[in-house]
Amino acid sequence: MERDELLTKIKPRMPEKRYIHTIGVMETAIQLAKLYDEDSKHAETAAIIHDVAKYADVDWMKQVIVREQLDPELLQWNAEIMHGPVGAVVARDEFGVTNEDILNAIRHHTTGRAGMTKLEKIVYVADMIEPNRKFDGVVRLREIASRDINEAMRACVSHTLAFLIATGQPIYPLSIICYNDLMREE
Amino acid sequence: MERDELLTKIKPRMPEKRYIHTIGVMETAIQLAKLYDEDSKHAETAAIIHDVAKYADVDWMKQVIVREQLDPELLQWNAEIMHGPVGAVVARDEFGVTNEDILNAIRHHTTGRAGMTKLEKIVYVADMIEPNRKFDGVVRLREIASRDINEAMRACVSHTLAFLIATGQPIYPLSIICYNDLMREE
Repeated sequence: MERDELLTKIKPRMPEKRYIHTIGVMETAIQLAKLYDEDSKHAETAAIIHDVAKYADVDWMKQVIVREQLDPELLQWNAEIMHGPVGAVVARDEFGVTNEDILNAIRHHTTGRAGMTKLEKIVYVADMIEPNRKFDGVVRLREIASRDINEAMRACVSHTLAFLIATGQPIYPLSIICYNDLMREE
Repeated sequence: MERDELLTKIKPRMPEKRYIHTIGVMETAIQLAKLYDEDSKHAETAAIIHDVAKYADVDWMKQVIVREQLDPELLQWNAEIMHGPVGAVVARDEFGVTNEDILNAIRHHTTGRAGMTKLEKIVYVADMIEPNRKFDGVVRLREIASRDINEAMRACVSHTLAFLIATGQPIYPLSIICYNDLMREE
């Protein structure tokens, strides 16, 4: 599917602010793909679709998780954790995406996982550093992303975990598996 | 076993500095037990024995883990993670400890776990805040421990995780299960 068609299709499924964020993730993911010799069309597609399920009805997401036999542990978590895995199902069923790497980049963009591919890292990092992000430390993350995608991935995951702990929020276990994998990879 | 006998038995198994730390943990654990209506003799015993395996030979610890059919995941981790579970085996076999709560307090004093008992929390917290500890933030942790053992447990685990992330060290998955359990309990 071409960029304009994808954008037209995702736009009504999210608030204006999230759509602007999505454009930012798309542009950043394409830049990173060119920089790190990844397929920029794959990066574009994954980035445009990554948040497609972010505002989906929670009960509907739970039905999808059960029907598709996704990890039942997901049912104990909130929409923030469910929208990646469910978004990958939407990408396959409603956007006709068949490339497993693109689907995984959508699936794991919030939590990460062990053994992430370059495309998955690009989408994860782009989601955190796109130009509309304003949090403390984002400038440092952008600087790292401009020179080393693996170091950027480690820094982004560490930043996310530190934020969750500082604010007393639960941590999805897969994020720690991802973090440990990245630390061992170093 | 009486206090002096326990102390005599653990002293040769660790450097002087660790023995001084152990005395500090013992005194702090007894204080916390009195404050929070826990058995102070149980707290004393667990605290004295908690680091008994800290300087044990790593290959021997691995043999104990295999022989006792402890979680095989432990074999992938370092002595810092192994010494609690192995210490509980030493407590049972060489110190004659049969009380399961005391054994669990020794077993989980480094990583924590979901569903910790009051005694387990007391030993975990005492280990972090005993008077010889000097790290940034320890004064705040002591203050919290003086008024709420559950809040102190949350603060100690959060501090530990934040430190591991800030220094790029791997995190034992059980510690995240513990953290999530404490955050939900709040």
